Amino acid sequence: MGCRIAALFLCSFVVLSCHGIVVLGGFVRYNTSGGTVPGKLNVHLVSHSHDDVGWLKTVDQYYVGSNNSIQGACVNNVLDSVVDALLKNPDRKFVYVEQAFFQRWWAEKSENIREATRKLVDSGQLEFINGGWCMHDEAAVHYIDMIDQTTLGHRMIKKQFNKVPRIGWQIDPFGHSAVQSYLLGAELGFDSVHFARIDYQDRKKRSADKSLEVVWRGSKTFGSTSQIFADAFPIHYSPPDGFHFEVDDDTPPVQDDPLLFDYNVEQRVNDFINAAITQANVTRTNHIMWTMGDDFTHQYAETWFRQMDKLIHYVNKDGRVHALYSTPSIYIDAKNAANQSWPLKVDDYFPYADSANAYWTGYFTSRPTFKRYVRMLSGYYLAARQLEFFVGIASSGLSTTSLGDAMGLAQHHDAVSGTAKQHTTNDYAKRLSSGSSKAEIVVNLALSCLTSSNKQCASPSTNFTQCNLLNISYCPPTEDESFGESLVLVLYNPLGWARTDFIRIPVNDDQLSVRDSGGNFIESQLVELDNATSNLRKFYVEAYLGISSKEKPKYWLVFQVSVPPLGWNTYFISKGAGADGTGTGSKSHMSTTATPENGTIEVGPGPFKMSFSSVSGQLIRVFSSKTGTDIPIQQSYLWYGSSTGDAADAQASGAYIFRPNGAPPTAVSRSVPLKIIRGPLVDEVHQQFSSWIYQITRLYKDKDHAEIEFTIGPIPTDDGVGKEVITRLTANMATNKIFYTDSNGRDFLKRVRDYREDWNLQVTQPVAGNYYPINLGMYLEDGKSELSVLVDRAVGGSSIQDGELEIMLHRRLLADDSRGVGEALDETVCVKDACQGLTTRGIYYLSVNPSGNGAQWRRTAGQEIYSPLLLAFSHQTEEVWKASHIMKGTQMDPGYSLPPNVALLTLEDLNDGTVLLRLAHLYEAGEDIHYSTLAKVELKKMFANKMIKSLTETSLSANQNKSEMKRMNWRVEGDTGDSPTPMRGGPVSNATLIVELGPMEIRTFLLAF
Amino acid sequence: MGCRIAALFLCSFVVLSCHGIVVLGGFVRYNTSGGTVPGKLNVHLVSHSHDDVGWLKTVDQYYVGSNNSIQGACVNNVLDSVVDALLKNPDRKFVYVEQAFFQRWWAEKSENIREATRKLVDSGQLEFINGGWCMHDEAAVHYIDMIDQTTLGHRMIKKQFNKVPRIGWQIDPFGHSAVQSYLLGAELGFDSVHFARIDYQDRKKRSADKSLEVVWRGSKTFGSTSQIFADAFPIHYSPPDGFHFEVDDDTPPVQDDPLLFDYNVEQRVNDFINAAITQANVTRTNHIMWTMGDDFTHQYAETWFRQMDKLIHYVNKDGRVHALYSTPSIYIDAKNAANQSWPLKVDDYFPYADSANAYWTGYFTSRPTFKRYVRMLSGYYLAARQLEFFVGIASSGLSTTSLGDAMGLAQHHDAVSGTAKQHTTNDYAKRLSSGSSKAEIVVNLALSCLTSSNKQCASPSTNFTQCNLLNISYCPPTEDESFGESLVLVLYNPLGWARTDFIRIPVNDDQLSVRDSGGNFIESQLVELDNATSNLRKFYVEAYLGISSKEKPKYWLVFQVSVPPLGWNTYFISKGAGADGTGTGSKSHMSTTATPENGTIEVGPGPFKMSFSSVSGQLIRVFSSKTGTDIPIQQSYLWYGSSTGDAADAQASGAYIFRPNGAPPTAVSRSVPLKIIRGPLVDEVHQQFSSWIYQITRLYKDKDHAEIEFTIGPIPTDDGVGKEVITRLTANMATNKIFYTDSNGRDFLKRVRDYREDWNLQVTQPVAGNYYPINLGMYLEDGKSELSVLVDRAVGGSSIQDGELEIMLHRRLLADDSRGVGEALDETVCVKDACQGLTTRGIYYLSVNPSGNGAQWRRTAGQEIYSPLLLAFSHQTEEVWKASHIMKGTQMDPGYSLPPNVALLTLEDLNDGTVLLRLAHLYEAGEDIHYSTLAKVELKKMFANKMIKSLTETSLSANQNKSEMKRMNWRVEGDTGDSPTPMRGGPVSNATLIVELGPMEIRTFLLAF
Repeated sequence: MGCRIAALFLCSFVVLSCHGIVVLGGFVRYNTSGGTVPGKLNVHLVSHSHDDVGWLKTVDQYYVGSNNSIQGACVNNVLDSVVDALLKNPDRKFVYVEQAFFQRWWAEKSENIREATRKLVDSGQLEFINGGWCMHDEAAVHYIDMIDQTTLGHRMIKKQFNKVPRIGWQIDPFGHSAVQSYLLGAELGFDSVHFARIDYQDRKKRSADKSLEVVWRGSKTFGSTSQIFADAFPIHYSPPDGFHFEVDDDTPPVQDDPLLFDYNVEQRVNDFINAAITQANVTRTNHIMWTMGDDFTHQYAETWFRQMDKLIHYVNKDGRVHALYSTPSIYIDAKNAANQSWPLKVDDYFPYADSANAYWTGYFTSRPTFKRYVRMLSGYYLAARQLEFFVGIASSGLSTTSLGDAMGLAQHHDAVSGTAKQHTTNDYAKRLSSGSSKAEIVVNLALSCLTSSNKQCASPSTNFTQCNLLNISYCPPTEDESFGESLVLVLYNPLGWARTDFIRIPVNDDQLSVRDSGGNFIESQLVELDNATSNLRKFYVEAYLGISSKEKPKYWLVFQVSVPPLGWNTYFISKGAGADGTGTGSKSHMSTTATPENGTIEVGPGPFKMSFSSVSGQLIRVFSSKTGTDIPIQQSYLWYGSSTGDAADAQASGAYIFRPNGAPPTAVSRSVPLKIIRGPLVDEVHQQFSSWIYQITRLYKDKDHAEIEFTIGPIPTDDGVGKEVITRLTANMATNKIFYTDSNGRDFLKRVRDYREDWNLQVTQPVAGNYYPINLGMYLEDGKSELSVLVDRAVGGSSIQDGELEIMLHRRLLADDSRGVGEALDETVCVKDACQGLTTRGIYYLSVNPSGNGAQWRRTAGQEIYSPLLLAFSHQTEEVWKASHIMKGTQMDPGYSLPPNVALLTLEDLNDGTVLLRLAHLYEAGEDIHYSTLAKVELKKMFANKMIKSLTETSLSANQNKSEMKRMNWRVEGDTGDSPTPMRGGPVSNATLIVELGPMEIRTFLLAF
Repeated sequence: MGCRIAALFLCSFVVLSCHGIVVLGGFVRYNTSGGTVPGKLNVHLVSHSHDDVGWLKTVDQYYVGSNNSIQGACVNNVLDSVVDALLKNPDRKFVYVEQAFFQRWWAEKSENIREATRKLVDSGQLEFINGGWCMHDEAAVHYIDMIDQTTLGHRMIKKQFNKVPRIGWQIDPFGHSAVQSYLLGAELGFDSVHFARIDYQDRKKRSADKSLEVVWRGSKTFGSTSQIFADAFPIHYSPPDGFHFEVDDDTPPVQDDPLLFDYNVEQRVNDFINAAITQANVTRTNHIMWTMGDDFTHQYAETWFRQMDKLIHYVNKDGRVHALYSTPSIYIDAKNAANQSWPLKVDDYFPYADSANAYWTGYFTSRPTFKRYVRMLSGYYLAARQLEFFVGIASSGLSTTSLGDAMGLAQHHDAVSGTAKQHTTNDYAKRLSSGSSKAEIVVNLALSCLTSSNKQCASPSTNFTQCNLLNISYCPPTEDESFGESLVLVLYNPLGWARTDFIRIPVNDDQLSVRDSGGNFIESQLVELDNATSNLRKFYVEAYLGISSKEKPKYWLVFQVSVPPLGWNTYFISKGAGADGTGTGSKSHMSTTATPENGTIEVGPGPFKMSFSSVSGQLIRVFSSKTGTDIPIQQSYLWYGSSTGDAADAQASGAYIFRPNGAPPTAVSRSVPLKIIRGPLVDEVHQQFSSWIYQITRLYKDKDHAEIEFTIGPIPTDDGVGKEVITRLTANMATNKIFYTDSNGRDFLKRVRDYREDWNLQVTQPVAGNYYPINLGMYLEDGKSELSVLVDRAVGGSSIQDGELEIMLHRRLLADDSRGVGEALDETVCVKDACQGLTTRGIYYLSVNPSGNGAQWRRTAGQEIYSPLLLAFSHQTEEVWKASHIMKGTQMDPGYSLPPNVALLTLEDLNDGTVLLRLAHLYEAGEDIHYSTLAKVELKKMFANKMIKSLTETSLSANQNKSEMKRMNWRVEGDTGDSPTPMRGGPVSNATLIVELGPMEIRTFLLAF
């Protein structure tokens, strides 16, 4: 036929909206006004964009929108287009979270845009929530880093907008910590915290009984006084299916022009109402929230708002439910006003699983060297800010802010978690390296100034060097054969207590003597450098610095130092017998090598001792003659073979997920040769467990613990099996399934194997499902003794059998676990083209104590591990040095130190006339009979050299006055309201300036001097 | 080791831009001001979005952004975001093309946005170019449709913005026509036309000699007086590699914040300059244009402008070249000012190939039934607007605008071209169907009014029915057994000449008589309905109307009618011997079936005759006793097997590309049974060439040509071979490689087989590379005779051997040709679940004339084919009808008709107090000895019933006064300037109102009555 008149009459007969077009639809003024409506189901549309500050791309790539072949994402687009979209309709709202991105954007905006943005913030259209530098991880982060990164973000928001975020928005982190809820939640002044990821079994149960939203009391110590409303989303942080409106999304837009084809308003309104009712069925009250956004959405925000304008208009016209532009603040206000009782939740939301074989407990350990780097710099950053403040150089252009920025990024839930791509992880490391290099200059300058007798602070009078690779025996100033004059070592103690510690530096000379600041020779010991260390040194110095290191140093020189609180001390290491020529007595002791006798070898120069089997080489027992504690303990290294998926479930073990392949873990060795080194200061047990695991156990003269230094790697994978390496302590203790792990290095939580408080656990992964994150340590208790381990970085750990304690130290995997990162966690290090699996080196600390007495060691040693002495080297003759330097000093009143249960968390010159001071009580209520008590800090003595002009107590992030903080009341199911009031310090008198702290209390002040 | 200090020192030592971030980059005020700079290479950045008004998705899906799984594209985003982006920086510019989209957007915008947009247009930031309803195709479109769709768009631009587009922007059409250059270019007042697609060999040659930019004189008749500057892009209409900045594109953004990582300003500036120099090397003058956009780009326009702001700023700071925001207007002004000589280009740019085996000549025929539908409605739309004007009902709410809109869309280069996806093609058909249904109401109302004796025009006094499926014998009013009273047939003649023609209507009764408006019986003939038609009728009526058609009608009733110019006439068909009872003489003649005698059968009741072999059934010769022309001709059907790619080249034949598989075309049959039907009015030769090809050749009493009706399909593909079906005429003519094809139904162009005027053709596809688009017809000439064919729709055709003339009538393919549409062109039609390949039915017209005399037939018959009589049926007794109706009439002075060399192209009430009149001279200069002369139209007589109050001559699209049109001067290489001045009509005197037209002249007027 001559013409194909498809649907010629169909159109007239059937399709009613089949119109011509030259005159088209016409403008519709969408009615999007109005708040909530009583008596109706209110659907709060909360627009957001989940912008990882690094994951598949680096933070800067995400910001500028480069490297889009990996992921199409540009945060510059998000913020530009959101502001435009908000300006188009005053009802539209948006929440923004990550200040690392926002500040990049803000910095490059014109004053016009800034002014418009300020108005949007003032009107509530743009609301900052969470508001930290990033959305930090909750498993692998230390609470001090959480506080620092949050403070950094909150300070910018306060400064630029005079706003205080009210909402915690941890929508993506893979499990949620107790410290997050009460400390980085309630103590920030947040009214609520929202998140998407909770255990799939937990979610099912909570959906059934409408307990996704709870009142969360994460602190045993503070209970209801630090509670927060916590909202676990019914599904995820994306909108319901069919309401995802990103550019190019294949979602049916609301087509409301009757003169175009495919008019679908009724259909879309029905879709909306159905989705709303589905959610209302698992939610208490007449308020539900839709999270209108997803990862890096709102590249062109108008695509979302255009549809939401229409949906609100037509849904409200329909009238069955009520839709509104909202924010979590508005949502929470509505929830709070509803006079509803809420379920109570205590403890935390770890571990997180999203299906039967997908426990996200691998990331507790993933990238262990990066985790250590972050932890190491956390302590360094704390010390550097103290020094920066003491010498008042924050305004010199040199500063620690670059390190603070890098540290803020590193806390991101795909950074320190180890779940970013390798190139992104390299970017984080580069930023930390750059930041710490700058901080190092600040530290050197500050030490130069502090130690200068004539307070020569304008330019550094002394050239200090620090040694970042000391742990692999690379330290040019100490290795220097000539030594020129003396090697001068200045040590800074960032703790508020005086401390003694043992220093280890690599040297080449066996004829060295050490003198203290008073000129007295002090005892020192030489320990021959082991091969494991020298091999590491050779490879990694070249890999990281691009230079071939010269001949390995021959010895470690060990000596004991003592340093005043917030102060420094100076030591001199010289060649030969020392300047006074008194002879050999001043020289270092050469260590001796012990010959194993009998079947058992006892090690330890002090009261804390260990004994080993000379037959198997294995640890047999650990005991302290001081406390009488004596526990038979074996120690071993094992590895879980990583699943790459099986017939039943393709889930592989990966960066996020720990899924062992089901076989029992393989012991690396049954017996291991021992090498015992003894001396006056330290005994060492060297054990080569295998070609790729080396361990040195060190027992120092005055320490109540053993340092166990492990060197693991390259993990062999030539058998095609990924491996997750653990160390396991098997103690003769009846622990009844119970063990304790810390929450972000702060509180200790009781863990019960194969059990969850909140639901009837179906055990699908008997190992991975019992792993918990560890940042400070872990302990077992059997009514008689405590076996405690402290760690030097974030790890995962568990107790898979009674009396057993295991921590995962390293992982090398061959498959991706399908959660987006798209890479197997197979870290390698290269020298030119020669690559090998990453080796990790670190230390865990072991102590045994009578039951109920371990806290003191854990808290005190924990602080010392976190805040080690800071070492700066120089070369000078002792005389010349002394002529121009002060040898030893403190910033506090010389007779003063902080109480042993109080730590100085932050001392930072904000460079705006105020100084940030944060003090923390280190003990939980009831944790220790002596120390779980009210502590007092005398600020006048603490700042003996300065005059405090004013003091303001603030919220944890220092963005609001403590006295002005408001707290929402929530009705809790079954709450009798008769729980005891926790002990807290009282107001600080301006006269006495004494700060009281109750157990676990952290108090934050802004000081002016 | 304990920490992975990647790049720790690397950073300080090597990476200079490795900075911390808390204090970030800072606002940069990009300097994007300034026009062109003399003495430098100026890079004109022209921002655009190429928005197909339907292709992979329908026009409305593209507009609202639905169906994004097919293609992420939303024009609403483009226009919203472009306006926002332009408002941010007054230097930014954007050009927009497709008014079908722009009007959808404009209609739904608030007055605020409209006002802002108006300002952007006024300031030149937003410029409309091309400005038609779509970017029309150039091969498969009729010039009247090109004019109509352009006028529609230009009228909106004029009305809303008082702007006149200056630039032709045909960047995507697949080859470029002569009519485009001079008529839809120069005659619109365009200064230039720009496009991307020219033959790859041509482009190579033009790049080498810098002749991509030319002065194009597409009209033989007008030469330099209708020339245009034509710019073929060096590569495509996208930016140079690495400068494509769509959301999510993986293009390195200009990273100019030195405080972020990956600062790359120098790199990107160098990239820019290198790309600019590459282009400058193939371009004359110091001006090059970068087309900053692509298909549906600028979904979020800021992504482009943000980068361009930076590029302009930094490139100009660098200073080696000069970058600027520009438009084609600015670019062309600069070109024009350069005082450069340009190469001359004549004829056209067909056919287009983008590689050796990729000739885009398949689309000349693709979707032949859709092409016919568009062509049929083109004539109908023309007639309907005449009627609408005559009765003054444009303001009644009923209108032809809906059809005008649908027709505008259908001219798009992926619509009538047949290169859209099937669902999109269905959408076009649905819109045409809807639009024509509305136009049908207008026509019925107008005819009712016109024919009413008491001018009862307010409401239709007569129920008219029209028959859209007449060609498959479906026409309920004529089939009606009972007939009630008489069947009344009112015929409207949209031509300016009186005409006679033969009407064919399906009837069931063999006892019918036909009377004219004077009551006289007229001769009529009954032809038995063939099975091919009745089978089509059964299947397609159900397929298209969803109803089972009743028993097939038994006969075609044929009779001759005559209708005044722009007038109507009435005929009555009654049962039996007629009301006057004069007996059998008034009854229809039953056709007789001839028995083949001898070896040759002569057919034709008039002087134009054909003879067939009674042995083979083949056509032997065609001759006219009137002119004495007598040409031996065979006619056959053949098919090319479609390539699906081969080892050397994977290119398949597809919707765009014609690539035969290399085998010679297969003849459908060597001999074919003949059925000859004879009668007083028409002789018919029925030939069943195969089970799927049926042909009826009709020779009417008074016609100088044969009508050859082909019915082709379903094309069998069960052999796995796609087929491209041609009809081939093999004449005994020595044509010396030369044949003639029309340009968009207007000019005829000389084609030379295996030859191109502009370069030394490498013949890679001897068939496909010689195909040309045909809209009006094609002819051969050998110095003695002309063999002419006219077509009823767009097709492709060629002359592959001397004396041969072939046209491709249908295609059914099994592979996609990889140019984006992603579907094989395999059209099927379904009744419920029973689908079969599409059958096409149509007519081509064959005439033979003495050499130099064919034009008269081609031009006159061409107009009659384009503008057939419009048939409207009613039922009424003759007496009653006559009592209330005027039987016959004309809108012109009864004694007047247009000269035979002039056609009325447009007569349309613009519903704003003006009427659009467009008159066209039908002959080229020198085409016909009698008719290639100055013609005169007397408007007073043409509009005898109305008084012309004013007359304004305008540009072709009626958007500017002719007298105000400016024309750029261009220097042309080798131009002596002594070409003869073409004949054009002089100014129209307001007194006489006589319009003169020189050959090929089209004059456009706005009249007020």
